[in-house]
Amino acid sequence: MTMIEMGKRAKEASRVLSCAKSDEKTKALLALADALEAQCDYILAENQKDLDAGKANGMSDALLDRLALSVSRVSSMAQGARQVAAFPDPIGTVLSGNTLPNGLEVTKVRVPLGVIGIIYEARPNVTADAAALCLKSGNAVILRGGKEAINSNMAVAKVMRKAIEEAGLPADCVQLVEDTSRQSSIELMGLTDYLDVLIPRGGAGLIKATVENAKVPVIETGAGNCHVYIDEFADIQMAADIVFNAKTSRPSVCNAIETVLVHKNIADKALPAMKAELDKMNVEIRGCDRTREVLGDSVVPATEEDYYTEYHDYILAVKVVSSIDEAVSHIAKYSTGHSECIVTENYNNANLFTKQVDSAAVYVNASTRFTDGGEFGLGAEIGISTQKLHARGPMGINELTSMKFIIKGNGQVRV
Amino acid sequence: MTMIEMGKRAKEASRVLSCAKSDEKTKALLALADALEAQCDYILAENQKDLDAGKANGMSDALLDRLALSVSRVSSMAQGARQVAAFPDPIGTVLSGNTLPNGLEVTKVRVPLGVIGIIYEARPNVTADAAALCLKSGNAVILRGGKEAINSNMAVAKVMRKAIEEAGLPADCVQLVEDTSRQSSIELMGLTDYLDVLIPRGGAGLIKATVENAKVPVIETGAGNCHVYIDEFADIQMAADIVFNAKTSRPSVCNAIETVLVHKNIADKALPAMKAELDKMNVEIRGCDRTREVLGDSVVPATEEDYYTEYHDYILAVKVVSSIDEAVSHIAKYSTGHSECIVTENYNNANLFTKQVDSAAVYVNASTRFTDGGEFGLGAEIGISTQKLHARGPMGINELTSMKFIIKGNGQVRV
Repeated sequence: MTMIEMGKRAKEASRVLSCAKSDEKTKALLALADALEAQCDYILAENQKDLDAGKANGMSDALLDRLALSVSRVSSMAQGARQVAAFPDPIGTVLSGNTLPNGLEVTKVRVPLGVIGIIYEARPNVTADAAALCLKSGNAVILRGGKEAINSNMAVAKVMRKAIEEAGLPADCVQLVEDTSRQSSIELMGLTDYLDVLIPRGGAGLIKATVENAKVPVIETGAGNCHVYIDEFADIQMAADIVFNAKTSRPSVCNAIETVLVHKNIADKALPAMKAELDKMNVEIRGCDRTREVLGDSVVPATEEDYYTEYHDYILAVKVVSSIDEAVSHIAKYSTGHSECIVTENYNNANLFTKQVDSAAVYVNASTRFTDGGEFGLGAEIGISTQKLHARGPMGINELTSMKFIIKGNGQVRV
Repeated sequence: MTMIEMGKRAKEASRVLSCAKSDEKTKALLALADALEAQCDYILAENQKDLDAGKANGMSDALLDRLALSVSRVSSMAQGARQVAAFPDPIGTVLSGNTLPNGLEVTKVRVPLGVIGIIYEARPNVTADAAALCLKSGNAVILRGGKEAINSNMAVAKVMRKAIEEAGLPADCVQLVEDTSRQSSIELMGLTDYLDVLIPRGGAGLIKATVENAKVPVIETGAGNCHVYIDEFADIQMAADIVFNAKTSRPSVCNAIETVLVHKNIADKALPAMKAELDKMNVEIRGCDRTREVLGDSVVPATEEDYYTEYHDYILAVKVVSSIDEAVSHIAKYSTGHSECIVTENYNNANLFTKQVDSAAVYVNASTRFTDGGEFGLGAEIGISTQKLHARGPMGINELTSMKFIIKGNGQVRV
């Protein structure tokens, strides 16, 4: 099937889905969840093909682990769909409304975006999670996963499509692109007549390529070069605990920190306290000259490149700064605008930092690891937006919607 | 100055402006308004150069009229800036907030988008209007107007920049691209490191080129292939009045209609009533076979192309349809998603139309000409979005903002 044909089918399905009742969507989501569990053996057998191919191609253990499904992981996908089914339906919510002087009644109503494209990499659970969120929010979705997971993705999509259709909604609410060539990505990025938004989920390379090549609107997600700034008025042990948690609780994720900035007036005490914690997980520190003076030669000299790097690993860049303004400027220059934290007991500095730092989530005295749809109470998330248009920070189902104006009159014309 | 240098300056100015107090922005806007009036002679002299060049190049009277400034038009620009100054400041509004179970206080706060690019065509008033809206909403703006208006735009920008600087904000809050070559547009569209959004204002060609070429996020505006559907249960005179108003009150604008769909069961009566009104302004009707049977050979046969066309003129396409579903499908196929209207006295058909038609503004029994920021009470508008991401329909200053999460804790780390 050509990409344009898929686009047409998605558009058609989206017209039906956008007007579906909540009950109909809930029924389809529950059917889809049951089907994933009932067809677990089939899905695991197809997943095994991907794992075999991955091993034959020398895929790393970490990647193989992300690719691997199991009874419990398939069950998690089903459970995720059931949770999404239980959310309140966002569609049809009246966002605001008023009556104009001429009697026209204007209401602003939440509606689906329409057709959503998602480009993602190795994890097959995204296939089910994204489909459930899109279905709930009334959007048809075109999924374009990585070639490493193609058999798993095809199996999951096939099971979901059958269940959706049997529940009375169009199977084309969920479509998977089976051609995993670079060409199919490019075609999806250019599908301006059919796609309302394209969301890339994956590494920096994928996101950059999507932003550069897409002609359809894109929501950038997931790039996280996050910072903790230890202010001169910080509680030192709190700072050390926050840095330790934000760096080591899960280094591979986007809300983990990559750089710590330390005020010069507190560096003598804060740096050793922080290092004592980080040493528990053997975190490699790459520091500026002043950091190395305080912590010694075991600290690797940091380069300019380090401050731009998302290590996603047990490595941390550290820089001593001479003022809060320097910290804010450093963040403005190097951050990807995801999550930043100030540790301070000073009222004015807390306010200055939260006001001036231009990131999706700005913390005072808490770990950046909380930037997450689940933690923020959004239920589930489709990704974390690091752009400012449409959605910023964790994106739940509301962020997969648009609105329209409905205007009711009785013959009004404009003078 | 290179585009990258302009981007850097805009980013710097935006950091200052994003934290400016309302009072400071108001002062700058009022100063800018006063300066435009005080420097009116200079602006008109520069405008005259553009008018002379336009005449020498054979510019049409209609375009010359759009390009021409006068004492009253300059005064309108100033008055517009004063109105914007009087709006409530959107920045800093708390959109929502809650305390998580672990004690973290999460608030969602409205913030500026950052740096906005605007590409536009011949009307020099856009230079002042857009600058005022961006300044009020805390955004730095890079304006790239058409070459026909370059002297006018440079004069207006120069006057505004001086006034802004004297009022204590950075002059670079407002920058004008002086190079009006195609190359400068392309560079602006690729300014991913500095531009948060690009808004094209102008004809279909400009908007298409921007969507196709831009790497930065774009908000599409202004394409308006709008429809009125006369349902079988319509009040015929109301339908005729609405069609007349929506077609002829200002045919050149995007909320004017281009096609009327008429239910077959009412065509015999509705078409002549409608034509009687349209004849008053000598509107050319291009109709389907059935329309021509009813209205006679004076009606030009409509082609497939007609249904796609925004005439922006005293021309109207007319098609008889056999059901409301056919009307909805026709709109789904040909509409640009701007504004559509059903004329009906039937409750279910009114609801079906407003639910199923996927456009920014969907009307029952009122002229599409009301789709306008001023009419909807938004104060002023930067354009009318015809996309579904971020903003849809008339865009006021709230649509020029983003949000961020501010999270206040006392040492919380994630388990």
